Amino acid sequence: MSGSLVIVGLGPGSSDLLTPAAARALQAATDLVGYGPYLDRIPEIISGQRRHASDNAEGRKVAVVSGGDPGVFAMAAAVFEAIEIGDPNWRELDIHVEPGITAMLAAAAEVGAPLGGDFCAISLSDNLKSWETIERRLRAAAQGDFVIALYNPASKARPHQLGQAFNLLRTIKSPQTVVLFVQKAATPETRVIVATLAEADPALADMRTLVIIGATATRLIPRTGQRPWVYTPRAETGIAR
Amino acid sequence: MSGSLVIVGLGPGSSDLLTPAAARALQAATDLVGYGPYLDRIPEIISGQRRHASDNAEGRKVAVVSGGDPGVFAMAAAVFEAIEIGDPNWRELDIHVEPGITAMLAAAAEVGAPLGGDFCAISLSDNLKSWETIERRLRAAAQGDFVIALYNPASKARPHQLGQAFNLLRTIKSPQTVVLFVQKAATPETRVIVATLAEADPALADMRTLVIIGATATRLIPRTGQRPWVYTPRAETGIAR
Repeated sequence: MSGSLVIVGLGPGSSDLLTPAAARALQAATDLVGYGPYLDRIPEIISGQRRHASDNAEGRKVAVVSGGDPGVFAMAAAVFEAIEIGDPNWRELDIHVEPGITAMLAAAAEVGAPLGGDFCAISLSDNLKSWETIERRLRAAAQGDFVIALYNPASKARPHQLGQAFNLLRTIKSPQTVVLFVQKAATPETRVIVATLAEADPALADMRTLVIIGATATRLIPRTGQRPWVYTPRAETGIAR
Repeated sequence: MSGSLVIVGLGPGSSDLLTPAAARALQAATDLVGYGPYLDRIPEIISGQRRHASDNAEGRKVAVVSGGDPGVFAMAAAVFEAIEIGDPNWRELDIHVEPGITAMLAAAAEVGAPLGGDFCAISLSDNLKSWETIERRLRAAAQGDFVIALYNPASKARPHQLGQAFNLLRTIKSPQTVVLFVQKAATPETRVIVATLAEADPALADMRTLVIIGATATRLIPRTGQRPWVYTPRAETGIAR
């Protein structure tokens, strides 16, 4: 079986954060596959490919496009699921994954360095896993004092889960724990809200929001007339003076 | 106080994975600061800046360069530590963080999509945190059934810690758990070893290795004459058929 398949990370949105390798992979493709909003993000300099806003393309050099990094709560796992259960010949295709800037990296860069210590990433979507598993992971993350990045914190179909997650974390973590809401990171419409776990309002999150919950060591650097920088020092005991 | 400071992620090595935004930030700087090997990675098209292989530069538009993503076990937290304890005027500087492709994303892309489920990132270095804290986090990560990415798995000064980490994880996770050693991801010298937790040899890791330990759901897709693809399905119960 001939043909190639590349799964390409577009980063958080701006073509400024699309890597040269990803841009070249898109340019080399004959066919682009992905959700419409991701296809719409591909810069106009990349042209000439058939674009399929679905997953039923049969192309020769196919690029499956993905927001952020394709390997983080995005398209790559779905593609490998299809390869595992599909025609055995698909395994012989030339398959490649092009990494991208995933949402938590772009969100962290907006506010400072909140992921500066050990951290974990959890998708709050229970479409493909049980809410019990999500709670188990939130509890483990809190008990391990990880910084926690929450992907898919809320959607219209799931308006209550972030509040439930905050309530669970409040039983383990300090009320003064830093909570960040970073909406549309790395775009001109970025919005950042810095709160504490005690007062964090889950209604501040939507599908384009990445929520970061600090570890014990996570700190604010106050500034005059601007929101504070937020970072997690490398040392667990705080700043190494 | 005038001047600007940007903390720039170079990605895993190749300039192919340096974002256009990061390249532009380097080009706009008057002074580049960072460890020598990172300075050496900056493409030759970016020129004209004073390069300081140390941290004592006083420049006007300074770019601090960092491997991978600056916010993940790299330079950003160190810079914000310095800002917090330093001259209060530094807080008024125009500071910006340019994200990059961090090592675990590049490593995951080499092997498939092992980070396709919830995951965490832990640095095994105990220079700035206690080994007890590292063990606490490894235990929590295993109990939460996260995929685990281990940064700084070994160095000459710390040859035994990865073996200790494997031993701890063996008390909680299945012996059949997938363990990946990805050395020099996204370079021409990439080397990937796929093992199980039962047989994983800590001597396979060095400072340029990223170690990924699968969750229960992490799977292999065997291929003829090539190493298997490794991925974590989106559904906790395995593939959604």
